[in-house]
Amino acid sequence: MRILLINPNTSLAMTERMVESATRSLAPDIELVAMTADRGMPYIASRAEALLAGATTLEMIAQHHAGMDAVVIGAFGDPGLIAARELFDLPITAMAEAAMLTACMLGPRFGIVTFSPVMTAWYEDAVSLSGLNGRCAGIRVPDSGFGSIDRVQHELETELTELCCRAAVDDKADAVILAGAPLTGLAARIAERVPVPLVDPLDAAIGQAALLARLHTRPARAGRFARPGSKPATGITPALAAWIEHRVDLIEVPPAEM
Amino acid sequence: MRILLINPNTSLAMTERMVESATRSLAPDIELVAMTADRGMPYIASRAEALLAGATTLEMIAQHHAGMDAVVIGAFGDPGLIAARELFDLPITAMAEAAMLTACMLGPRFGIVTFSPVMTAWYEDAVSLSGLNGRCAGIRVPDSGFGSIDRVQHELETELTELCCRAAVDDKADAVILAGAPLTGLAARIAERVPVPLVDPLDAAIGQAALLARLHTRPARAGRFARPGSKPATGITPALAAWIEHRVDLIEVPPAEM
Amino acid sequence: MRILLINPNTSLAMTERMVESATRSLAPDIELVAMTADRGMPYIASRAEALLAGATTLEMIAQHHAGMDAVVIGAFGDPGLIAARELFDLPITAMAEAAMLTACMLGPRFGIVTFSPVMTAWYEDAVSLSGLNGRCAGIRVPDSGFGSIDRVQHELETELTELCCRAAVDDKADAVILAGAPLTGLAARIAERVPVPLVDPLDAAIGQAALLARLHTRPARAGRFARPGSKPATGITPALAAWIEHRVDLIEVPPAEM
Amino acid sequence: MRILLINPNTSLAMTERMVESATRSLAPDIELVAMTADRGMPYIASRAEALLAGATTLEMIAQHHAGMDAVVIGAFGDPGLIAARELFDLPITAMAEAAMLTACMLGPRFGIVTFSPVMTAWYEDAVSLSGLNGRCAGIRVPDSGFGSIDRVQHELETELTELCCRAAVDDKADAVILAGAPLTGLAARIAERVPVPLVDPLDAAIGQAALLARLHTRPARAGRFARPGSKPATGITPALAAWIEHRVDLIEVPPAEM
Amino acid sequence: MRILLINPNTSLAMTERMVESATRSLAPDIELVAMTADRGMPYIASRAEALLAGATTLEMIAQHHAGMDAVVIGAFGDPGLIAARELFDLPITAMAEAAMLTACMLGPRFGIVTFSPVMTAWYEDAVSLSGLNGRCAGIRVPDSGFGSIDRVQHELETELTELCCRAAVDDKADAVILAGAPLTGLAARIAERVPVPLVDPLDAAIGQAALLARLHTRPARAGRFARPGSKPATGITPALAAWIEHRVDLIEVPPAEM
Amino acid sequence: MRILLINPNTSLAMTERMVESATRSLAPDIELVAMTADRGMPYIASRAEALLAGATTLEMIAQHHAGMDAVVIGAFGDPGLIAARELFDLPITAMAEAAMLTACMLGPRFGIVTFSPVMTAWYEDAVSLSGLNGRCAGIRVPDSGFGSIDRVQHELETELTELCCRAAVDDKADAVILAGAPLTGLAARIAERVPVPLVDPLDAAIGQAALLARLHTRPARAGRFARPGSKPATGITPALAAWIEHRVDLIEVPPAEM
Repeated sequence: MRILLINPNTSLAMTERMVESATRSLAPDIELVAMTADRGMPYIASRAEALLAGATTLEMIAQHHAGMDAVVIGAFGDPGLIAARELFDLPITAMAEAAMLTACMLGPRFGIVTFSPVMTAWYEDAVSLSGLNGRCAGIRVPDSGFGSIDRVQHELETELTELCCRAAVDDKADAVILAGAPLTGLAARIAERVPVPLVDPLDAAIGQAALLARLHTRPARAGRFARPGSKPATGITPALAAWIEHRVDLIEVPPAEM
Repeated sequence: MRILLINPNTSLAMTERMVESATRSLAPDIELVAMTADRGMPYIASRAEALLAGATTLEMIAQHHAGMDAVVIGAFGDPGLIAARELFDLPITAMAEAAMLTACMLGPRFGIVTFSPVMTAWYEDAVSLSGLNGRCAGIRVPDSGFGSIDRVQHELETELTELCCRAAVDDKADAVILAGAPLTGLAARIAERVPVPLVDPLDAAIGQAALLARLHTRPARAGRFARPGSKPATGITPALAAWIEHRVDLIEVPPAEM
Repeated sequence: MRILLINPNTSLAMTERMVESATRSLAPDIELVAMTADRGMPYIASRAEALLAGATTLEMIAQHHAGMDAVVIGAFGDPGLIAARELFDLPITAMAEAAMLTACMLGPRFGIVTFSPVMTAWYEDAVSLSGLNGRCAGIRVPDSGFGSIDRVQHELETELTELCCRAAVDDKADAVILAGAPLTGLAARIAERVPVPLVDPLDAAIGQAALLARLHTRPARAGRFARPGSKPATGITPALAAWIEHRVDLIEVPPAEM
Repeated sequence: MRILLINPNTSLAMTERMVESATRSLAPDIELVAMTADRGMPYIASRAEALLAGATTLEMIAQHHAGMDAVVIGAFGDPGLIAARELFDLPITAMAEAAMLTACMLGPRFGIVTFSPVMTAWYEDAVSLSGLNGRCAGIRVPDSGFGSIDRVQHELETELTELCCRAAVDDKADAVILAGAPLTGLAARIAERVPVPLVDPLDAAIGQAALLARLHTRPARAGRFARPGSKPATGITPALAAWIEHRVDLIEVPPAEM
Repeated sequence: MRILLINPNTSLAMTERMVESATRSLAPDIELVAMTADRGMPYIASRAEALLAGATTLEMIAQHHAGMDAVVIGAFGDPGLIAARELFDLPITAMAEAAMLTACMLGPRFGIVTFSPVMTAWYEDAVSLSGLNGRCAGIRVPDSGFGSIDRVQHELETELTELCCRAAVDDKADAVILAGAPLTGLAARIAERVPVPLVDPLDAAIGQAALLARLHTRPARAGRFARPGSKPATGITPALAAWIEHRVDLIEVPPAEM
Repeated sequence: MRILLINPNTSLAMTERMVESATRSLAPDIELVAMTADRGMPYIASRAEALLAGATTLEMIAQHHAGMDAVVIGAFGDPGLIAARELFDLPITAMAEAAMLTACMLGPRFGIVTFSPVMTAWYEDAVSLSGLNGRCAGIRVPDSGFGSIDRVQHELETELTELCCRAAVDDKADAVILAGAPLTGLAARIAERVPVPLVDPLDAAIGQAALLARLHTRPARAGRFARPGSKPATGITPALAAWIEHRVDLIEVPPAEM
């Protein structure tokens, strides 16, 4: 099974760490094909940036989904997720939704811990979009800043661990999601120090994408995720324009390398 | 007072009809400056198209908001509204949210009538985003198709009037919103034939934008709509990149013409 | 455009301050006609008082709405608002609802700051009535008492400003409503000292009333705000009884002076 | 135990039927003291009328509650209920709330059947006020009109019975409330013909009032139902003004007869 | 009227205290017949234990309900309540639901105070099941442990009283429920020291059971509480199997003693 | 990976069909160990039966979970799910919750189609328990009865397919869940004839159980699913009593065969 991992951030280092982290717990029959955005921001941290990244995500899926069994959008606020599901015919998951749905099986309420207050409004939107506000015990962020986005999970490991514990004890969270692609891999490292289960959103998103692919459900031909009819499109990337204009209906080209 | 009207669709004819319709009921001290998207689709009708249009909307506001008192996003699904409010410092409204908030003062529950079933999923998202699901009596669309998007409000006038009546009588809507930029101006024409008040979303959006401008509220320096810090941005339009990178902090350039 | 401003409190000084404050930001084509209740309490502060004031509000509108384009109920808990909309055929707004709907365009969540804990239960009811609980970040009141209701906004200016800041920082409110007719005008004075936008409910209510009047919507002939059929009524004021009994169906008498 | 039954309608015949119906199932230790409004409308059927009746209800309780153990407000939309609980210190129930809370023990969802479409908006408000919308399966009203409010339960008996059955079968209601004081006593007569339990709101309201009185809870000295401080009041009835101004704090005068 | 009180805990001492406490405020025409579970746990404190106790409750009702007018399930988390209502044809109440519905008439929001943190998750489930989350101001538990479940209400009287006061003052609860069968009788003892009304769940449950019995509603023959058709059942107690298999449709055997 | 499949119904034929159906799409590294209840009913169809089956489920897990990596409860109403998660330390899923969470990734709203109206109330409870009511488009059941529970999916195949189509077209469901263990395997057979994706709850439950097992989350030591302290238990099965009394804390015995 081939799963396309889209990193809508422009940081190649982040893509590499995500692949490395995911590979450790990957089922043996899954091949992960990762792509990094070539325009946008090094890491998304606002709704405006997420909107731009969502458009880029559609472009990347249009160009690279041929031959894939499923797609994972590798950012916690799930840029472009709903639009992508509507537009494309293969299973698509993203980190926030997958982490939250998975956490729902680990306890009545989940907490979210991330690394910077600038992410909060965007992540709140992701919770609302999923309709799971009633199960969210809150979002916690550290007071300390950090030096490097690539090393933030190490720089703030103590603070983040403490926040997970406070989410459990003070917010009554039954499970904690470590939110944000830069925290990928942290859950495994600190699980022993937190009294409730931790969810790594990338593991959850890849696991859910694989699950959906194994179900072999047919693409929607009706309903809110049925592919829109063809539409003339100007000024957007060739692969996406071709897909929107229904000039490419079949999946035939093998995806490029990372 | 100068209000920037963004048409995120690429149809110039639609922009012209919107300006013409709005001008009829405009307060005398309001000057409307309209802009039409130069890339995208002739009219937006899906979540994927709305995502792309949202990105275009940010680009257009970045380029044209200098010297403006408020911005109106001229599409019913409100593409880019939340992102734009976060990114820019002047009042911004859009057609769906403004119509729904206005309708809340006309009755406990509002209905929505639009011209094509392909709009439904996108409009449902707009209702959810506003948090007003509990006040929405339903969305109704005609069974008949139409020939021209530019003339749809005339072609389907009878069907749309009948749907407004059914929204009132069968769905118990206390007010009806005529949704979709292509229906701009229809409300005034059919009001006599419908037993509950009709809301024209463009009139509502311009009216709410003017109201916000008159309040002279200060831009948020904290909270979910505070402007994000500067961030390097690659591969996006110069005006938007300059704004995101905080190379342009002051509003100084007069906007271009429609 | 003539807007009838009903002060359901018996304090003439409050009416005068409201008119003075509103006049500063009034659109040039709006004439404000203010009326003060001649029975009831100096200022309403409980649900029981609001119920009595609501009845008085109906009486006042019955007597004075002829020749008006819209009505504003000048008390934050909106006494009589729903009943008045049902009974009368012109646009009617009130301070709490208008402030909350306006605040919804300034941020995902609004806080409310008022001057006395005795108002809290009544204001909570107003939030619930609007269906906007999910967008309310909380209600804050000062610990200190005050000497004069007419000067409370000056006496407690420091405390109220601090509460606005705490609503923004601690409660994560994206905008703050300064609730209660006695605080009219305070927002403009302290806006610089609060990091999120402030909403003056009277400005919002007059602005929304004007907006509705400009829409020229037709009165509801069906639905929850359709005028009830005629009904014999005993023991109530002549103007209201005449209206309820449908002996007065046309708006013909010019309103009295303040 | 003495229970004061307030009929906020001006129809003495209705009061008599209510007393007669309630007496049949009354616990032996309960004495019912009934009062009829001497101003207002023969029967309340709109939110405006309910607002006026609510004020009258406060006046009647102020005048007659001395020596009583509990009060029942004998109208389905519960005019004045919340205000009365805030203002007075003895248990107070009303027909809509009591019927709905009682119905919650008879099934997950209750339906409401009443005799005229003009009641619907008011009753919807009562459901919302109770916070039980999620448990309401809908409100049904007959298509037929009726001749006399005093005989409506007999005139429409067949239609109302049919509506109860449709509430059960089509709306999936697990219990049905026969709403509106004019339907008092109907439940017992048609129960055999309806496949789910029927709730008579007057029986429920008197039963719940007696239950609260037997609990001997202390009046609230804090919270949303704590009695407001004294306040000068002009232009209202002597007994109510005396109570609002705290000139009467003790319950000492025996109530008058019906 | 005969009311069957089921104690699904195995503690006979607890049953005796419940009967003693209830008897003090019992209406004179009510005879309470109490039964204690002969298998299970001394007191239920988790969802797993509640599930087992729910099954036991069904067994006990099957064996003892003949000749009864109503049943009260004497544990706060209401083990087996919904299943019992579906299965049996007489009115059934339980302590959590009855206390919450009763508290709804004493204030907009109720708090819950119990004696041990291990009860919290189970009680939260009971609040959710009732659909009354929006009216629950929170659940408070003491920090201190206790020595004997039979004397916990005396051991922790000071702490529990303080928690009631904090529920009123800090959580803004308008009434407080003293939750858990081991606290039966405490409310009457500490009511003077708490500024809002206290609800004793056993008194509420017996009162509501009596109220339902007095309504003489007919058993549901349709809807969610209609008795299921006969079904072969193996490995369960004879009385319950006989009832499930419809071998016993009539109530004929007098109940045993406590 | 070993997954324990609990069939809480007493029908061995159903267990066999579930194993056969699941095996077809099972990941190669998963071994399914199936157990059939030896007491209870042939198939569960009411809340009372589900309560009894929930207790049996706890007994079966206690006896057979040693050496397992995860547990799947093989009935759609998820008998005992929450209690089992609280009591045991390995991942546990069940058919309704897993199907609904999975469906959330296939569309904004899911429909549920089952084979008999007697299941409806129980399945509604399962939807409520998951907190996903807002995403459920409705439950549909055939009008026709059926002869054999073992062959119901063949007998009613045409009707069930038609209901799936109506769920999509009339109820606007974006995905449809085929609910009830007796329908296991039907989804694959009729997928071509339904315009939206179908979810097989057993496939979903096994997939989610495997996903959770692969995450290697640590058991909760705090929160709502932390294992309760030891408690004396009488009159229940030895394995479950031993687990509740903490006499068995380690998983050591290999499970028995089906």
